[in-house]
Amino acid sequence: MGSTEQLPVAIIGASGYGGVQLARLLVEHPLVEIAYMGGSGSAGSGFGDLYPHLAHSIDITIENAEPEAIADRAKIVFLSLPNGLACKLAPKLLAKGCKVLDLSADYRFRDLQTYTDWYKTERDDLDVAASAVYGLPEIYRDRIAETNLVGCPGCYPTATLLALQPLLKQGLIDLRSIVIDAKSGTSGGGRQPKTNMLLAEASASVCAYGIGKHRHTPEIEQICSDLAGQEVLVQFTPHLMPMVRGILSTVYANMRDPGLTKDDVLTIYKSFYRSSEWVKVLPSGIYPQTKWACGTNLCYIGLEVDSRTGRVIVTSAIDNLMKGQAAQAVQSMNIMMGWPETTGLPKLAFYP
Amino acid sequence: MGSTEQLPVAIIGASGYGGVQLARLLVEHPLVEIAYMGGSGSAGSGFGDLYPHLAHSIDITIENAEPEAIADRAKIVFLSLPNGLACKLAPKLLAKGCKVLDLSADYRFRDLQTYTDWYKTERDDLDVAASAVYGLPEIYRDRIAETNLVGCPGCYPTATLLALQPLLKQGLIDLRSIVIDAKSGTSGGGRQPKTNMLLAEASASVCAYGIGKHRHTPEIEQICSDLAGQEVLVQFTPHLMPMVRGILSTVYANMRDPGLTKDDVLTIYKSFYRSSEWVKVLPSGIYPQTKWACGTNLCYIGLEVDSRTGRVIVTSAIDNLMKGQAAQAVQSMNIMMGWPETTGLPKLAFYP
Amino acid sequence: MGSTEQLPVAIIGASGYGGVQLARLLVEHPLVEIAYMGGSGSAGSGFGDLYPHLAHSIDITIENAEPEAIADRAKIVFLSLPNGLACKLAPKLLAKGCKVLDLSADYRFRDLQTYTDWYKTERDDLDVAASAVYGLPEIYRDRIAETNLVGCPGCYPTATLLALQPLLKQGLIDLRSIVIDAKSGTSGGGRQPKTNMLLAEASASVCAYGIGKHRHTPEIEQICSDLAGQEVLVQFTPHLMPMVRGILSTVYANMRDPGLTKDDVLTIYKSFYRSSEWVKVLPSGIYPQTKWACGTNLCYIGLEVDSRTGRVIVTSAIDNLMKGQAAQAVQSMNIMMGWPETTGLPKLAFYP
Amino acid sequence: MGSTEQLPVAIIGASGYGGVQLARLLVEHPLVEIAYMGGSGSAGSGFGDLYPHLAHSIDITIENAEPEAIADRAKIVFLSLPNGLACKLAPKLLAKGCKVLDLSADYRFRDLQTYTDWYKTERDDLDVAASAVYGLPEIYRDRIAETNLVGCPGCYPTATLLALQPLLKQGLIDLRSIVIDAKSGTSGGGRQPKTNMLLAEASASVCAYGIGKHRHTPEIEQICSDLAGQEVLVQFTPHLMPMVRGILSTVYANMRDPGLTKDDVLTIYKSFYRSSEWVKVLPSGIYPQTKWACGTNLCYIGLEVDSRTGRVIVTSAIDNLMKGQAAQAVQSMNIMMGWPETTGLPKLAFYP
Repeated sequence: MGSTEQLPVAIIGASGYGGVQLARLLVEHPLVEIAYMGGSGSAGSGFGDLYPHLAHSIDITIENAEPEAIADRAKIVFLSLPNGLACKLAPKLLAKGCKVLDLSADYRFRDLQTYTDWYKTERDDLDVAASAVYGLPEIYRDRIAETNLVGCPGCYPTATLLALQPLLKQGLIDLRSIVIDAKSGTSGGGRQPKTNMLLAEASASVCAYGIGKHRHTPEIEQICSDLAGQEVLVQFTPHLMPMVRGILSTVYANMRDPGLTKDDVLTIYKSFYRSSEWVKVLPSGIYPQTKWACGTNLCYIGLEVDSRTGRVIVTSAIDNLMKGQAAQAVQSMNIMMGWPETTGLPKLAFYP
Repeated sequence: MGSTEQLPVAIIGASGYGGVQLARLLVEHPLVEIAYMGGSGSAGSGFGDLYPHLAHSIDITIENAEPEAIADRAKIVFLSLPNGLACKLAPKLLAKGCKVLDLSADYRFRDLQTYTDWYKTERDDLDVAASAVYGLPEIYRDRIAETNLVGCPGCYPTATLLALQPLLKQGLIDLRSIVIDAKSGTSGGGRQPKTNMLLAEASASVCAYGIGKHRHTPEIEQICSDLAGQEVLVQFTPHLMPMVRGILSTVYANMRDPGLTKDDVLTIYKSFYRSSEWVKVLPSGIYPQTKWACGTNLCYIGLEVDSRTGRVIVTSAIDNLMKGQAAQAVQSMNIMMGWPETTGLPKLAFYP
Repeated sequence: MGSTEQLPVAIIGASGYGGVQLARLLVEHPLVEIAYMGGSGSAGSGFGDLYPHLAHSIDITIENAEPEAIADRAKIVFLSLPNGLACKLAPKLLAKGCKVLDLSADYRFRDLQTYTDWYKTERDDLDVAASAVYGLPEIYRDRIAETNLVGCPGCYPTATLLALQPLLKQGLIDLRSIVIDAKSGTSGGGRQPKTNMLLAEASASVCAYGIGKHRHTPEIEQICSDLAGQEVLVQFTPHLMPMVRGILSTVYANMRDPGLTKDDVLTIYKSFYRSSEWVKVLPSGIYPQTKWACGTNLCYIGLEVDSRTGRVIVTSAIDNLMKGQAAQAVQSMNIMMGWPETTGLPKLAFYP
Repeated sequence: MGSTEQLPVAIIGASGYGGVQLARLLVEHPLVEIAYMGGSGSAGSGFGDLYPHLAHSIDITIENAEPEAIADRAKIVFLSLPNGLACKLAPKLLAKGCKVLDLSADYRFRDLQTYTDWYKTERDDLDVAASAVYGLPEIYRDRIAETNLVGCPGCYPTATLLALQPLLKQGLIDLRSIVIDAKSGTSGGGRQPKTNMLLAEASASVCAYGIGKHRHTPEIEQICSDLAGQEVLVQFTPHLMPMVRGILSTVYANMRDPGLTKDDVLTIYKSFYRSSEWVKVLPSGIYPQTKWACGTNLCYIGLEVDSRTGRVIVTSAIDNLMKGQAAQAVQSMNIMMGWPETTGLPKLAFYP
């Protein structure tokens, strides 16, 4: 396919880890071309100055993020900015006819009061927010296909919701019993230097953080409630792992029916995700390693039913920067455009 | 103190990680001297052949583990052998007047049927087993002082039981609600080469294993039941971390009294462990990193009460090879001998 | 392109790291299909049993490595076996009309006496060995295009020879002064479990090994001598790095002409590799990180001329399993088949 | 020994990695007590606020670094400050009768012009600088015993000079042929957050930096020249390793006498360092891992003579924060005070 047929897209916030993953995926996507890279601190720099190893393939200068200029040159815009910035930019881009995929938290919440409570930011774009669709294709594929604005999920919610969805949709678990113990590589903390993210600090150590307070909690609860048809509260604890990439979410819940076996639940999961290209339910007795998903848009799921305790334990593994961020955004773009959902997305892991 | 006054001790199973930690601690302990190192595969080797960097300080040849010879030369014997071997050796050593500290699972269970069910090994040393004390000093200090046989705790149980003890003793939690999500470095898997423990496999990745089946489950339940005064079942899930040392145990439970605050519970913990030199309850809002405990006999505890969900979440961090294994055994030896409990034990971490 | 047009290829030795990389590359290569996977210990297993995360894309059973069966089903055969096995298999496959790419050391040496001296193996396939071409396309592209048997280079020689080639071809350095200090991730040691490759041993540590004795020494010297037109001896010291993938080769040599500046030498390098898609000479002042090459077939080169000492220092970075092994073999296959040299080969790194 | 007999010492620059190592060593040193901790940015904080895991053992508030106050309360002062600050503070402390050990570069150079050339800082404390002794006890033990001002060596020079000393003193090598390829963990870069030191960047990757320009070059050359009795130029290339602690220095040089064997050179080294408690020459065929030195004041040396090339290759391993920084400073303090050189210094590694 000649480049004249490729759809022009923009990446705003190109200098961070989300931006560099988007750049890598979009430059290899057969149906689009990167027509605009925008940033604030990095405006004026060549992308290859920030990432010398990509200079040979991505020869683009980062510009200021001017809505007019972006909309003139791109049909689809990926926003990879800190929370609270996309909601200033997206309304203008939508008004000019762009499709927008936002990787921040700005368009993930149906109820803006929840956003304001947890993110401490007032908002005045209620109408725009109301039109946004939560960009987890395995839950909202049909609605993504019809929207112009996708609020791409957080990394922890992606892994967690894919692990919980069959249980919630089938009504298999006690909704007050959900405990989510999640583990993430440090790249989720971004490229801005912070002492606790130094190799000398974060290497060879693990710790919990944000217990009971992490802002992915209301995001997970919103979607769980939607899936269950009633309000769900979850216990969510993130942990920092001494590795760059990957999230493992270990989810615990009490089974409603003590007679269901592991094989029963595995059958339900396999059936549930049968037509999902990007979710792989592992055979009985196999639990995923995060490494298996590295570099791909895949989510691997392994599970166990403990007949002694009456609990189901589900572990799900993703690459936090891919299915947890950039690749999932590309997956949503494919759906918005009516392209095959797997276009341009890697499925074979960088391994070992 | 001259060496003539130092008590002679033996390490059986000196070539593994438990053995090398014991050797390091005991060679620096002011009140003992290593008089015997025993092994099977490594018999005949110098300890410095196995660990060239220790040759300058530990110039001892590993011998076969003959009970007669051991008892002739040592008053205290540390057994650091695979499960199922200590129970052959300990009765003979005890009969000859030695004090024995076993680092395997052989003497951790009051009920040998539980041992047989989970470890698939028949036993005929019922009387000896009945005399053993579970070597977690912060729970059984008084009984350790009076026994000649200590079954040293597993690494996961150590971190987990120290996190749970105040809750169980004070009756603060719903006993059916306990979820333990534990994370360990790979040194817990020993020095025998296995594919899944290779750096190329275990690095840059996390995974769960043994869900609902790990043999530390009945060990945790036995002691929890003892602390609670009634039978306790727990949900225990271990995870492999891409690091060498350290365990973080994240424990979840439902509070019985929804009115208790984090400050209330912190006060209870600080009071509970006030006189325990080796357990440090952190200030409000601080959760431990495993790195903080590395190289020490310390256990750091941080906790949170989530008023939204009614749960308490406790995280505890230890060095799996120290408080989780060798150093805790030395702590028990100190108690058995009537020495100050901190003798010869490091408290300042190898950090960063 | 339909599968009927894809050329059938075989991977023999599919269970190791070389095999799994080859499998990943070949399953995505548009012009071939994997028609045969062979092994010894793993024969009878599904590839997905060994690598559960690839089961969804590579549904092939590993068979015994029977030359007849292989040649019946495949036109091109990749041998990824321990040293000394390919030389038994390759002659039979060649006789049946297959093209063969061997990833072991068996066909890297023009002079079999050198092979015998360093590898301690007698050989009787002199004629076959004489027909083999050393598979470093940036040196022997033309000859690779005309052979049926490629001896694919070792990982260290690949990084090192690409760093040295312009200096040797242009006669810029004192041939007795070459010092090569190379650093490799542990995946170069393969997937067989060994104590020194355990995460608990190899993590958080570096060491030299095989000083003056590593078998890549004569391989580097053979090709250096060919490039220089006279015999070259090198000082080669490999080091083990606490990481999975990547090689950095730091090469030192005395400049013949003290007047040449860094900019002069950079100009020579850029000119030399101008038409090489897979070698990227970095701008002045930038030295490569191994991470920049991870997952790609690229070699990054940065260099410095030290006017104080009269030395040139070149650092080159590759992914040891890709440009250093599997991807370079695919590059050679592309050349043997007359396909574009970049077909099916990744150039955007897995980063960060 | 009661605390009333302990000598009061000060640590200025207590918040960095040098400071925290000094604090840990000095709090356990039997002959001193920490009487003052000083800093700039951290003044007013408790040391335990910066390092919560040390709060239980080091309950000291960091104060401003006022020379008067320091000298009133401490007899020995450790300066662990950025380059260019110690030379403002040390003269005042010396004038008030303190002994000073400076961990920065300020007092390492006999020739202040070299300092000014490489560090770009003008100095006016020529007299004071002239009285300073380079604090590498294995070279300048006698002079350290008689000075009040020690300029503690850099981490790379420590490992490198211990590797080179016997060769230079015995005149065994060609002085123009020295190549030093050194590898360091990231803790050498300090605790200030920088992008290239993030776990997400520095993990799983190696790179060279500062080729031909690193400021440890003139420091190494100054001492080498002193040892050789004539001017020595070296080729020094540092590399960043994906690990927290440790330096490995691999040193290459041409032998003057081609007849000397590895055993000859090993005999020379063992004899040379026979009475040095902290330098361990390994048996033939064993090369050190950096991990072997972690947490100790030891330097391990392994070497090889390559008869093919006529070169000697020496590898030396230290803990960059211990023998490479804080522990070596304590060793010098012991010597300055006439205490046994090993007092308070660990010799058994944190391993694995």
